[in-house]
Amino acid sequence: MTAARPDPAHPSESRHPSESPNPPGPPELRITAVTVTPVAFHEPPLLNAVGVHEPYALRAVVEVATDQGLTGLGETTADEGHLDRLHTAAAAVTGLPVHALGRLRARVAAALGGRTGSDRHGLTGPITAASMVDRVFSPLEVACLDIQGRAAGRPVSDLLGGRVRDAVPYSAYLFHKWAGHPGGPPDDWGEAVDTAGILAQARRLVDTYGFTALKLKGGVRPPHEEVETVLALHEAFPGLPLRLDPNAAWTVDTALDTARRLEGVLEYLEDPTPGLDGMAEVAGGTAIPLATNMCVTAFEHLPLAVARRSARIVLADHHYWGGLHRSRLLAGICDTFGLGLSMHSNAHLGISLAAMTHLAAASPELTHACDTHWPWRSEDVIEPGALTLADGAVRVPTGPGLGVELDRDALARLHEQYLTCGLRTRDDTGYRRRTDPSYRRRIPRW
Amino acid sequence: MTAARPDPAHPSESRHPSESPNPPGPPELRITAVTVTPVAFHEPPLLNAVGVHEPYALRAVVEVATDQGLTGLGETTADEGHLDRLHTAAAAVTGLPVHALGRLRARVAAALGGRTGSDRHGLTGPITAASMVDRVFSPLEVACLDIQGRAAGRPVSDLLGGRVRDAVPYSAYLFHKWAGHPGGPPDDWGEAVDTAGILAQARRLVDTYGFTALKLKGGVRPPHEEVETVLALHEAFPGLPLRLDPNAAWTVDTALDTARRLEGVLEYLEDPTPGLDGMAEVAGGTAIPLATNMCVTAFEHLPLAVARRSARIVLADHHYWGGLHRSRLLAGICDTFGLGLSMHSNAHLGISLAAMTHLAAASPELTHACDTHWPWRSEDVIEPGALTLADGAVRVPTGPGLGVELDRDALARLHEQYLTCGLRTRDDTGYRRRTDPSYRRRIPRW
Repeated sequence: MTAARPDPAHPSESRHPSESPNPPGPPELRITAVTVTPVAFHEPPLLNAVGVHEPYALRAVVEVATDQGLTGLGETTADEGHLDRLHTAAAAVTGLPVHALGRLRARVAAALGGRTGSDRHGLTGPITAASMVDRVFSPLEVACLDIQGRAAGRPVSDLLGGRVRDAVPYSAYLFHKWAGHPGGPPDDWGEAVDTAGILAQARRLVDTYGFTALKLKGGVRPPHEEVETVLALHEAFPGLPLRLDPNAAWTVDTALDTARRLEGVLEYLEDPTPGLDGMAEVAGGTAIPLATNMCVTAFEHLPLAVARRSARIVLADHHYWGGLHRSRLLAGICDTFGLGLSMHSNAHLGISLAAMTHLAAASPELTHACDTHWPWRSEDVIEPGALTLADGAVRVPTGPGLGVELDRDALARLHEQYLTCGLRTRDDTGYRRRTDPSYRRRIPRW
Repeated sequence: MTAARPDPAHPSESRHPSESPNPPGPPELRITAVTVTPVAFHEPPLLNAVGVHEPYALRAVVEVATDQGLTGLGETTADEGHLDRLHTAAAAVTGLPVHALGRLRARVAAALGGRTGSDRHGLTGPITAASMVDRVFSPLEVACLDIQGRAAGRPVSDLLGGRVRDAVPYSAYLFHKWAGHPGGPPDDWGEAVDTAGILAQARRLVDTYGFTALKLKGGVRPPHEEVETVLALHEAFPGLPLRLDPNAAWTVDTALDTARRLEGVLEYLEDPTPGLDGMAEVAGGTAIPLATNMCVTAFEHLPLAVARRSARIVLADHHYWGGLHRSRLLAGICDTFGLGLSMHSNAHLGISLAAMTHLAAASPELTHACDTHWPWRSEDVIEPGALTLADGAVRVPTGPGLGVELDRDALARLHEQYLTCGLRTRDDTGYRRRTDPSYRRRIPRW
């Protein structure tokens, strides 16, 4: 390589010195302000491999305002460190056009300056600098796409290649759970700590929402007990695809043994064991396809995952993968390299559900119904009616942008809840230890 | 897997039976007609590894019309078989919205019914069914993006993530050539069949267009002669990156020997030898990065190319890779799997140059200046002024859509030229054999 070569890989924003500027195009929609509002919403005591969900889930609502009055919405997690990075990013992108997503992402990357991190709840491990950029950029990108869609009079799915389905299938997300939070009354869902409890929960979810696929969050009870529950679900809901997700709670040997007992029953087994190597070993010993949203959570994980054939299905999540355009990239990579595609979900509100629905609608590569926590929430920040779960699917909004509007009263109420709830960082393990001091985070546990 | 599972991988266009349709959104822009106009434009006698360019290059101008008066432009090759497939595809997409690119591509795939093919000129080999869909879909997608941009008042680059550079760098494309076509007068460029001729051509191209990178189409003279020419270019244009593209004219041994003599001189060596295996062998024996647009021309080539590490740089070409969105996918795959990205060019007109420029402008992953044949053409179908090559780059149009307009008089003239020129399929080898009956297509030749 020689020095005089133009460097298209590192474009500057300055103009080519010896030329006149590009002739003026239509007016840009420039970002004038980014508002980040943390909110807390009630969450049932849902159990997982590292503990139990606290009484509130934290999210951040991101509002992007422009010089032409149009605004857009994004939603993301709200752990303290993430909020801090969001504020840094917000300042960095102010002034840029909402269509300049490549430059916006570069600005976010520069502003974060290579910061790395770790999820504190212990489910997805260390976060590299590139992955951190994707996580912080994601809600900004979604909000900019909301604005682009509103400006063009098109739904966000149309900005992603157009919808290939009018409704997006979601799976019922079954959780082991306590009857209520410690010290509080039982909640409306009641206890589910055994097969009978899970079957009742599944029946209610299917009857209420028409789900046509079931996912059980496992890693909570000993593996042989969860196998029994899955077999009972298989019998109770014949024909419905079943998934089990123990969140890497099993050793390779346990995973192989458990998988053997569920062949012909499971649609896929999600993250039975930690790490690409362990997953590859399990994958080699069972006919059940393995899925992951724990060991493939960033673009830099893909080359090794493809080489090792560790998992056959990737669970996308636009919150991790840099927004909707980059999730489309992930979908295309999966398709190109022979991987299946589903969608992961943390606790979320309606802005995220709208984004997930537009993304899935515009993804021909989707091979499995998506996950969503949505039925577990009882509050939201969007005006009701735009999104409904029926027949196991959410109809794709066809209005401009994401198709959801902020309910400012609800936003204020959930923000007040955030201020008073005392939670600032998700800590499933610490919350469980408050009632059971002997509890330890152990991955794998069995 | 079980039977009752919803099949998101194969969405139908019909509505979910038990629900009401999605609430009406803004009016769709629906395709009412697709017009395919083959054109022929004068081409100099440019030499390559399989023969010589005929007196005319054939292209097809694709016009997509909508029910709201907006129209969009695409451009592609115009070999007879391709024209036939374009007409099939055109009929299949009529009636669909221009934003429904995923459904448009599915319709094209269904209409082509798995047809495969082969490039007749011998440079890129057999064409699989999926790659055929991408090639036929490409000009339709570009035209639909032109319409989307016009409707939204945004340049096409803004639909692809926004431009990260205001001007796109292109390399000078040096060709060995005859003084003129057999039986005709010398053309304005004159002969270039030796080092002196290539040096003069390079000087003129650099002086006229300010190119800051040089590519020599090789595979024409014995390798040691082309090495001498490259070394002379290196001396005459110090600091300018140089590429050599012998179009797989060399055996592995010849390629290794030739590469050894050009280390420290070439930015990259393009397709020195045929096939992924041969390329991998050469790659293992030289420090010069290998580039390809011959053995990686479709998404299905990527897994093996990544596994074998056959080439370090992929030359994208939206005409092969299914349009601009899918070329962005290719760019993201290259970035994810550690491959560099440049851009290939066949003979083309201004509609394609506009599309290439928007694509490259919106691709942060681009690591090398793009190729273009554009300076070799002396006619065009677009109104002049929208695109200019200066300082080795084309400024990105900032007006709505592609930013180019059809010159209907020029279109009619070039279509008339197509009707009268007698050419219907590119045949570089056959044309060369007309003056040298002993000439054979041989890959590799040396």
